[in-house]
Amino acid sequence: MSIYLDHNATTAPDREVVDAVAWAMAQAWGNPSTLYRQGREARAVLDTARARVAGLIGAADPFEIVFTSGGTESDHLALTGSCGAGRGDHVVTSMAEHKAILRTCAQLEQSGFRVTYLPVDGLGRVDPDAVRKAITPKTALVSMMLANNEVGTINPLPEIAAICRERRVLLHSDAVQAPGRTAVDVAALGVDLLSISGHKLHGPRGVGALWTRRGTVLQSVLAGGSQERGVRPGTENVPGAHGLGVAAELARKRLAETPARVRSLRDRLWELLRAAVPEARAHGDLERGLCNVLNVSFPGHDAEELVLLLDKEGIEVGTGSACTTGQTTPSHVLLAMGVSPQEARCSIRFSLGQCNSQSEIDEVAAVVSRLVGGRSTCHS
Amino acid sequence: MSIYLDHNATTAPDREVVDAVAWAMAQAWGNPSTLYRQGREARAVLDTARARVAGLIGAADPFEIVFTSGGTESDHLALTGSCGAGRGDHVVTSMAEHKAILRTCAQLEQSGFRVTYLPVDGLGRVDPDAVRKAITPKTALVSMMLANNEVGTINPLPEIAAICRERRVLLHSDAVQAPGRTAVDVAALGVDLLSISGHKLHGPRGVGALWTRRGTVLQSVLAGGSQERGVRPGTENVPGAHGLGVAAELARKRLAETPARVRSLRDRLWELLRAAVPEARAHGDLERGLCNVLNVSFPGHDAEELVLLLDKEGIEVGTGSACTTGQTTPSHVLLAMGVSPQEARCSIRFSLGQCNSQSEIDEVAAVVSRLVGGRSTCHS
Repeated sequence: MSIYLDHNATTAPDREVVDAVAWAMAQAWGNPSTLYRQGREARAVLDTARARVAGLIGAADPFEIVFTSGGTESDHLALTGSCGAGRGDHVVTSMAEHKAILRTCAQLEQSGFRVTYLPVDGLGRVDPDAVRKAITPKTALVSMMLANNEVGTINPLPEIAAICRERRVLLHSDAVQAPGRTAVDVAALGVDLLSISGHKLHGPRGVGALWTRRGTVLQSVLAGGSQERGVRPGTENVPGAHGLGVAAELARKRLAETPARVRSLRDRLWELLRAAVPEARAHGDLERGLCNVLNVSFPGHDAEELVLLLDKEGIEVGTGSACTTGQTTPSHVLLAMGVSPQEARCSIRFSLGQCNSQSEIDEVAAVVSRLVGGRSTCHS
Repeated sequence: MSIYLDHNATTAPDREVVDAVAWAMAQAWGNPSTLYRQGREARAVLDTARARVAGLIGAADPFEIVFTSGGTESDHLALTGSCGAGRGDHVVTSMAEHKAILRTCAQLEQSGFRVTYLPVDGLGRVDPDAVRKAITPKTALVSMMLANNEVGTINPLPEIAAICRERRVLLHSDAVQAPGRTAVDVAALGVDLLSISGHKLHGPRGVGALWTRRGTVLQSVLAGGSQERGVRPGTENVPGAHGLGVAAELARKRLAETPARVRSLRDRLWELLRAAVPEARAHGDLERGLCNVLNVSFPGHDAEELVLLLDKEGIEVGTGSACTTGQTTPSHVLLAMGVSPQEARCSIRFSLGQCNSQSEIDEVAAVVSRLVGGRSTCHS
């Protein structure tokens, strides 16, 4: 058994989720758009899933949830769908967003939109005042992630939302890293659109959701049937939605206990590492950021090499965004935070999850310290 | 237990498929873009699935398979992705295509493309000569479905392909209704792009594939990571792909026996119905079309009412395309075939599957005959 510390890349689905998907595949396989019993039963399962996902994020109405194939599609639908609805030709986002946002923005630029990429501070946060200054009368949408996938930094969304409301500009947030790790309440955040992904919260792969505040007009990206109120055509993935619904309920219930425990493990890991490797440097906002992320550079140690060495020791960690693996360019997030390219190339991301134990953390600290040539971290 | 005769709307996943998805969720949950063991194992499962799907359709190279979230996305990616690659500003399709094609064409028209919608004959077939005449030097793509979802008619794709090759125009085919029901061989068909869907072939919901002949340049629709050779970003749905791979193998193996058996059941159903209800009229190409489809109008009997009456008797059938349920407009496919709107509103679609038995067929014939006021069909 390996020690898995790459929960921001993906998470293992809970046993209950696997069982839920298998159950729905066997029992709720009807097409929800059909009129007969088999179809109506599938529709009922889909509606329950919608309510559970709505419950996770404090959505008032389950029908504000649009099921998609995952976080990338949710982000794409939010941006392209909002911009297609004729609100303006300008988008505001940040330099530290996920590639799903940045590359959709690049597509929008090719279609004639103008995009403002706001800088972030040394912790990875966007300044609300910069959002205020960037908004113009032609701004259709602001898109700001809730929690950064590479460093875990949480953006000041309520402040940004207040500005967007005042200026009557839609606010979207890519929140795929947040559920189960921090409270996500669309009312408290003040956003209009919010993306989540099943496989980041111990749910199924290939399913996600876009929450859209009631009354928000979106143009669909795909074209076909009138499923999901016409916003997302294609026969509904009922088993995936059901699995996401079950995962959403589990994440909501665990919120009272899991994040605090994971945070203390994450803090222990950093304490052990910095004691053993004084030159190690953590990136991001350990205090107010996500409970589970520790992004550290070990100067002089190439990140990809270190990941492979750790793999040989049965420890699985990432080099930032899994979506850009194989690229030799340093993380755009760390660069935006002012980290030098050399240091960015030496950074690995530990992202913890609900199943990690203290003994795992101690072993990881010991192995990493040995590999990067630090002192022993054996405290026990 | 009800009798299910709406296999063109969706199919129940095979037990092996349910088990395969559950296995992959529990065992191959890693992110295939990561470098360590868990990721490499998931990548291996994905590659095996790709080879199995390639095997189903006679694709030379597994990497010609792009996994998507289903048939609607495959169709959309084929059309939008081809048209975005700068080949021309004209598309040729037919009036009898699925809404996923027709509405994507409508999107393309809004972006400045010109679309020619070819008529079909009384059986629902496109005339290859009409394709020849429609192609211009500016034609980027021809899209012609393999088998029609509402009536089962099979288009003369090899003839159409020969014309497209001669004129150097890409040919896409929406083949989602075909696998497991008729042989699908991309080389014999001569197409360049072909869409399939998991849930139409007893595979998982929420997963499909687009086969793209090697060397065919497609622009991605979604934007984000570089998964699926950059054509379809988003963390790969490994469990869905694995389930589709298992379903593809099962469909391929059953091809020798199942279609012939299903065809004889379908023919028996039509024989019983026409004997009992002389005014009933079948639409489509029973002889050369898909083995499993029987689209019949019962003059004077509203299709939706009949579907609901049959549901009360435990018989589940469709009214044409499940994707347009709730619409009161008559089927665009039947209208294109020259059926009158009145008659089209009276047509229901029986679509059989591998699990249907002769006794089920006899019961359906008896119940339908009773409901539409015909003579008894009790032959036994």
